Amino acid sequence: MALYVQKYGGTSVGSLERIAAVAERVKLTRAQGHDVVVVVSAMSGETNRLLGMAQQLDPDATRREVDVLISTGEQVTIALLAIALNQCGCPAVSMTGDQVRIHTDSAHGKARITHIDTEPVRAQLAAGKVVVIAGFQGRDEHNAITTLGRGGSDTTAVAVAAAIGADECQIFTDVDGVYTTDPRIEPKARRLSTITFEEMLEMASLGAKVLQIRSVEFAGKYRVPLRVLSSFADGEGTLITYGGERMEAPLVSGIAFNRNEASLTILGVPDRPTVAAQILGPISDANIDVDMIVQNTLGDGSADFTFTVNRDDFRRARALLESTATELGASCVQGNESIAKVSIVGVGMWNHPGVARTMFRVLGEHGINMQLISTSEIKISVVVDEKYLELAVRSLHDAFALDREPQEQPMGG
Amino acid sequence: MALYVQKYGGTSVGSLERIAAVAERVKLTRAQGHDVVVVVSAMSGETNRLLGMAQQLDPDATRREVDVLISTGEQVTIALLAIALNQCGCPAVSMTGDQVRIHTDSAHGKARITHIDTEPVRAQLAAGKVVVIAGFQGRDEHNAITTLGRGGSDTTAVAVAAAIGADECQIFTDVDGVYTTDPRIEPKARRLSTITFEEMLEMASLGAKVLQIRSVEFAGKYRVPLRVLSSFADGEGTLITYGGERMEAPLVSGIAFNRNEASLTILGVPDRPTVAAQILGPISDANIDVDMIVQNTLGDGSADFTFTVNRDDFRRARALLESTATELGASCVQGNESIAKVSIVGVGMWNHPGVARTMFRVLGEHGINMQLISTSEIKISVVVDEKYLELAVRSLHDAFALDREPQEQPMGG
Repeated sequence: MALYVQKYGGTSVGSLERIAAVAERVKLTRAQGHDVVVVVSAMSGETNRLLGMAQQLDPDATRREVDVLISTGEQVTIALLAIALNQCGCPAVSMTGDQVRIHTDSAHGKARITHIDTEPVRAQLAAGKVVVIAGFQGRDEHNAITTLGRGGSDTTAVAVAAAIGADECQIFTDVDGVYTTDPRIEPKARRLSTITFEEMLEMASLGAKVLQIRSVEFAGKYRVPLRVLSSFADGEGTLITYGGERMEAPLVSGIAFNRNEASLTILGVPDRPTVAAQILGPISDANIDVDMIVQNTLGDGSADFTFTVNRDDFRRARALLESTATELGASCVQGNESIAKVSIVGVGMWNHPGVARTMFRVLGEHGINMQLISTSEIKISVVVDEKYLELAVRSLHDAFALDREPQEQPMGG
Repeated sequence: MALYVQKYGGTSVGSLERIAAVAERVKLTRAQGHDVVVVVSAMSGETNRLLGMAQQLDPDATRREVDVLISTGEQVTIALLAIALNQCGCPAVSMTGDQVRIHTDSAHGKARITHIDTEPVRAQLAAGKVVVIAGFQGRDEHNAITTLGRGGSDTTAVAVAAAIGADECQIFTDVDGVYTTDPRIEPKARRLSTITFEEMLEMASLGAKVLQIRSVEFAGKYRVPLRVLSSFADGEGTLITYGGERMEAPLVSGIAFNRNEASLTILGVPDRPTVAAQILGPISDANIDVDMIVQNTLGDGSADFTFTVNRDDFRRARALLESTATELGASCVQGNESIAKVSIVGVGMWNHPGVARTMFRVLGEHGINMQLISTSEIKISVVVDEKYLELAVRSLHDAFALDREPQEQPMGG
């Protein structure tokens, strides 16, 4: 008898019929003698519907209250799934984030889980119940409702799996695993049967929406066995593996991309060492994540400074930057909301400089200008004009032959 | 500086525009220097939408989970109103039932408030905030979400007002006060400037939907000054008064009615003293309220036993009664879901037997058969076929001249 945490995303619980289907699947696992904890998202479209109402009232709606609002989405789903489970003869009980006692910090809209009390969940499991937990939400030390940010239900699932020592955390989604890239953009994309934790981390951080990055971090930290599966089809999905070099690791495992990007440039700031901290301090204080950063020294004692943020944070970041610009006597602030990031990811690339050369050559041949570049040991990211996104993904997928099963790679760039 | 509890019902917060209007009204009260606690219902239609989903999954959905589901309706409203208040420069904070610490018993769907901790609300008021509280909901001792039943937001408002010692509890609704009867049925219905607590209690218990009965009970128990007002128009509304005979009390103050009624009859039960308890015990154990009860002895040692329940409880009550019928060897169970209750209410009627005579005569003249009759000191209720409801209300309103301001009544029946 094993203990599974199963997470079902918004599409998987997108209608009453689908919720009933999820109940049947959970019942099947239960019938095999396993204990099951289910973590669910809001029904697809619900979070956006709620956010839309908030924004109609106030585009800069109080973030504490936005969390109160959107956390209802998951609460609706847990109730409906528990009703469906009880109806099909599988005793179940729902729990909100605060009932589970998922404690978080107070960063509304992107809170981090600080700890989870396992007693309430264990007590319900011991009573023979399937426990249905609202993903994406928690409580801070002031007893305010918090949310973990987009995709936070994955994080909840992994964190709960780690806390209760689950044997496997199964992420059921609308795709049947992790692909070399998004098949909606590149039909030749291929499912990976395994992916390393490090690659998954990069893929997630770069916008591949199969798993949310924080959930991957959590999984890695606690070595939670994590599997991505389809809610709609049978199959083994993709298993996230830990440690160990893979002998036949491909140079590049996948192409990730992210449309939810915006860039901000502050022109003509003083070229001195403290300026980056002065610019980014207020951004960081406002809990806005900064991704890529480039400082361009002009030689006249001044510099241009560019960074990217989530498009959701663009408005707020721009406002903060405008006042920093005034303080620094900068010449102006420019923003661009129509950019996208495209990245190649692979544990095999770290000692193969030829990978970067190939990437830049391919993009160049297609006339795609790279506005920013950022690299790590296992990924290279470039920012391009959003309109070139699909072209960039397809060209790179072709160039690295990702539609074919990986062979032993020739050594050397 | 006074402390007001203002309660806004589903219609008053039925759209984003109306929520913004409520925010403006609250801001106005705040600008006059008063402290304000706002209690809100779900946006109109929302509770039914949520219930509809539950019932599609399972007509006998787990009641604990139904409460988890429908309590989201009020949670959405508190967030939106707090956002609107903050947006218009009136600092506000939302609180769910559990954040307020509204403790209830465990009767899901019709829980009773056991106590309210006042510290969380007082702390926010002390911080200069308008506190926006979700009506209708609480937590039981197992930390499960409970709801107080239809109209429970009124109860929340009055209970909170009592707990924090508010100077007045103002119930804002889509009507501008308590009327002699529902103006949608009798256009000549007249607004009452005051109504006694006892009359209001009867009106509420009999289905006049201006205030929920439990809220009136609470108000009476703690002598909370209670006023019913319109959200959409200015005016003094109707004040609920306590104690003291009114010199010129009219014989009849109003006509109440309730369509949400169903009757159940168990035929041919043994005519012995314990039979009523045997029939009603399981109904009561299932937390189903029984209203009118009539036992009809047949003289052959058997009896027919009829009682009424809320139409919502009809299915469950009928199922329970079927098994009681088997145990008792009764001949059969009959149900009627198309009945309605019509009542005349007035503190002046208790020593005027002529009132009942007039009521029965008027209904008889219109060919309206009375299926059940029940009386108290200040009300007479009759159950009639639902199709006669409007006719009964209008005839009685006319017969007791309720469209005219009350004069000193002649004494004697």
